[in-house]
Amino acid sequence: MKTTKEIPYKIYLEESEMPTHYYNVRADMKKKPAPLLNPATLQPMTAEELGQVFCKELVAQELDDSTAYIPIPDEIRSFYKMYRPAPLVRAYELERKLNTPAHIYYKFEGNNTSGSHKLNSAIAQAYYAKKQGLRGVTTETGAGQWGTALSMACAYLELDCRVYMVKVSYEQKPFRREVMRTYGATVTPSPSNTTEIGKHILQQHPDTTGSLGCAISEAVEDATRREGYRYVLGSVLNQVLLHQSIIGLETKSAMDKYDIVPDIIIGCAGGGSNLGGLIAPFMGAQLRGEAQYRFIAVEPASCPSLTRGVYAYDFCDTGNVCPLAKMYTLGSDFIPSANHAGGLRYHGMSPTLSELYDQGLLEARAVEQTSVFEAAEYFARVEGILPAPESSHAIKVAIDEAIRCRENGEQKNILFGLTGTGYFDLVAYQHFNDHDMTDYIPTDEELKASFAKLPKLDNQPR
Amino acid sequence: MKTTKEIPYKIYLEESEMPTHYYNVRADMKKKPAPLLNPATLQPMTAEELGQVFCKELVAQELDDSTAYIPIPDEIRSFYKMYRPAPLVRAYELERKLNTPAHIYYKFEGNNTSGSHKLNSAIAQAYYAKKQGLRGVTTETGAGQWGTALSMACAYLELDCRVYMVKVSYEQKPFRREVMRTYGATVTPSPSNTTEIGKHILQQHPDTTGSLGCAISEAVEDATRREGYRYVLGSVLNQVLLHQSIIGLETKSAMDKYDIVPDIIIGCAGGGSNLGGLIAPFMGAQLRGEAQYRFIAVEPASCPSLTRGVYAYDFCDTGNVCPLAKMYTLGSDFIPSANHAGGLRYHGMSPTLSELYDQGLLEARAVEQTSVFEAAEYFARVEGILPAPESSHAIKVAIDEAIRCRENGEQKNILFGLTGTGYFDLVAYQHFNDHDMTDYIPTDEELKASFAKLPKLDNQPR
Repeated sequence: MKTTKEIPYKIYLEESEMPTHYYNVRADMKKKPAPLLNPATLQPMTAEELGQVFCKELVAQELDDSTAYIPIPDEIRSFYKMYRPAPLVRAYELERKLNTPAHIYYKFEGNNTSGSHKLNSAIAQAYYAKKQGLRGVTTETGAGQWGTALSMACAYLELDCRVYMVKVSYEQKPFRREVMRTYGATVTPSPSNTTEIGKHILQQHPDTTGSLGCAISEAVEDATRREGYRYVLGSVLNQVLLHQSIIGLETKSAMDKYDIVPDIIIGCAGGGSNLGGLIAPFMGAQLRGEAQYRFIAVEPASCPSLTRGVYAYDFCDTGNVCPLAKMYTLGSDFIPSANHAGGLRYHGMSPTLSELYDQGLLEARAVEQTSVFEAAEYFARVEGILPAPESSHAIKVAIDEAIRCRENGEQKNILFGLTGTGYFDLVAYQHFNDHDMTDYIPTDEELKASFAKLPKLDNQPR
Repeated sequence: MKTTKEIPYKIYLEESEMPTHYYNVRADMKKKPAPLLNPATLQPMTAEELGQVFCKELVAQELDDSTAYIPIPDEIRSFYKMYRPAPLVRAYELERKLNTPAHIYYKFEGNNTSGSHKLNSAIAQAYYAKKQGLRGVTTETGAGQWGTALSMACAYLELDCRVYMVKVSYEQKPFRREVMRTYGATVTPSPSNTTEIGKHILQQHPDTTGSLGCAISEAVEDATRREGYRYVLGSVLNQVLLHQSIIGLETKSAMDKYDIVPDIIIGCAGGGSNLGGLIAPFMGAQLRGEAQYRFIAVEPASCPSLTRGVYAYDFCDTGNVCPLAKMYTLGSDFIPSANHAGGLRYHGMSPTLSELYDQGLLEARAVEQTSVFEAAEYFARVEGILPAPESSHAIKVAIDEAIRCRENGEQKNILFGLTGTGYFDLVAYQHFNDHDMTDYIPTDEELKASFAKLPKLDNQPR
């Protein structure tokens, strides 16, 4: 660690220093992530097949695992300038409070109305859809960050936006719904009677409160049935990690400017979009043998795809209409306990991150939600930002590592991703404030039962 | 207007360029704002009398109308660095959409968890209370921005925080309440049975949903009955405008850096804290004869203190426990219609702004809430920020002025204050989205009846 320049509380790049290209970490991976498979033929999905669901440019990005730098169109960069560059914050107050010799930095992606990093990919996906002459896009949303981000991007580009929102969130988070409506989106609680798959699920489970996997199925069906529509997804996919690389690129530029080298890089991981974006250029440097870092993915103990899942081909959705992806997965039927309030509920993990994890380049840690909210409250009071529960998974481990530095007298640079704010998560905070929050860890038996339903391919683990 | 340098989307000052002193506009006013009066003696309040309610340093600031620059203590500056400098944004997208030759700028104060500029004064007031060795502070809050800001400041300084929240907001905005609780504040719906004045009001009006004036009375009573507590207020007072001058000082520095001279400066006005802070250094330059600007205060048509109130001594609170202030007022019993959702509900206006308005240095405009929410939605879709209803009053008039520039072919520089975000105002947005929002303008008879209850002093208008 060497930092000679005085570091401000917040490092903002100039607009002229903002990235002009996305960085595609797959280009530097010797062993690439496994391809998506057509569930009918079990053959790799072709561009043509993918083009029925996704718009063309995004299909090209999805399949391109050799081009390292992909230009960011000017229109997207203009939009980015409305809320980026995002600050890299030196957590001076947190360091002082923890009395740690470590230096703590976080990249704060919450200073926009979507409340998270999701906007980075939403505008890119909406832009390519608009450029292709499409009329609109469909998507799913859970907690609502992705749906809000996509609504904002579509409003800006005057593109129609149809969001399937997991029913329990639709009811418990009416304010997220209203933000999306204010941005002109159509929001439908999922499962719904507007799609065949929704009707089917409702017949089988009339009382279901929905799941991400189910909402994905409905959104895909909706897109494929409408003229001039495509489906877009806020995480998991290679293209999303590509767009989110802007997080890591900005972070690395800001750190380079001040000669800061992070020792540990921490991010929360649900589908992997934030973590994949944050670590991308650092991981690239490591893959090229230029540097060495510790990367830690933090996931909820109630939805532990990396730490307790299996690396296998699985469906991305409940209705099994999507391609198969090779990823760490808990099984596409797995739904975290209803008392889980902390986000990051997806059953699988980005194929790129899964492959990096499988190669031992990435550590993973699972944390329980009560400890996550304790970290969140602590952070809020000291650093003045009320974090999203998702982001608070990273905060929890960053604090743990900073305390370890204190105990060992180590002056490490800790970097974590603060993906968003918790302004729409106050029901969860209320449970925490009222001491009405419990932890939940799935049993081995539950996971085993879920793994048993994985699609039957050769060489699948069980 | 002369702007030769290329202007980025967002102008951020360096931390080293942040103001080191607050600016006290009263020092440059030839005719000063009228002093606060003791309601019993009708004599100007002394420092000793004020010290029973407010902490000492704040009393000194309240009474000082001759010192132009007052140092900002380092501890407050450290806190500011966690969320400031706030960006001065060039609204390129809005200009393009409006097809106006005007250049539109806004100072965005919403990038912090309190969601508004209120934090600027909250940390100052909490700091001086802590420095005096107090145990805690009490306050009132309406929509909750001020209470949230104070809770954050108190959590940071480990000071007890007791908030009386207008009952209707307490019930309709449970999330604001939970943010305050997360920051460790005690939140009581007002009127309550915990104070004498609260009990009295409840006896007289058992079904009341509360008002700011009533919550102020309860908070003051609570502070004066507890050992080591003082009362703090988020607007109206001279000290608050002093702290909020950081908004204008940063704005002016950022504009000076790029040789931008605003022609029109617009801010929403409830109690006047944001507007007073934004215009302070510009008004100072004008008072010193160095420059000339147009200043426009925008208020809701449903609570039009400047445009339809009278300039008179009035009570600041419903319980009449506070000093009398000379201000534009609708009468201390005036409560805006229940269908008014847009904030800025206070019956009076900052004595400093009232005096400037009375001297003809400030224009005022009243706008109806439906048009305010239309402007808010338009702005959100184009500029990507969901604004607070309060701030949207300024947006409405900024857009009106930009359209006028288009019609007249004038290339003016328009500056407005974007005081905060609307993330906790989604009930109001929902009414707007559902076309379930109406306007309300008090009748002349209603106002006349309210004016008739003004305290009986010599030379009071009726």
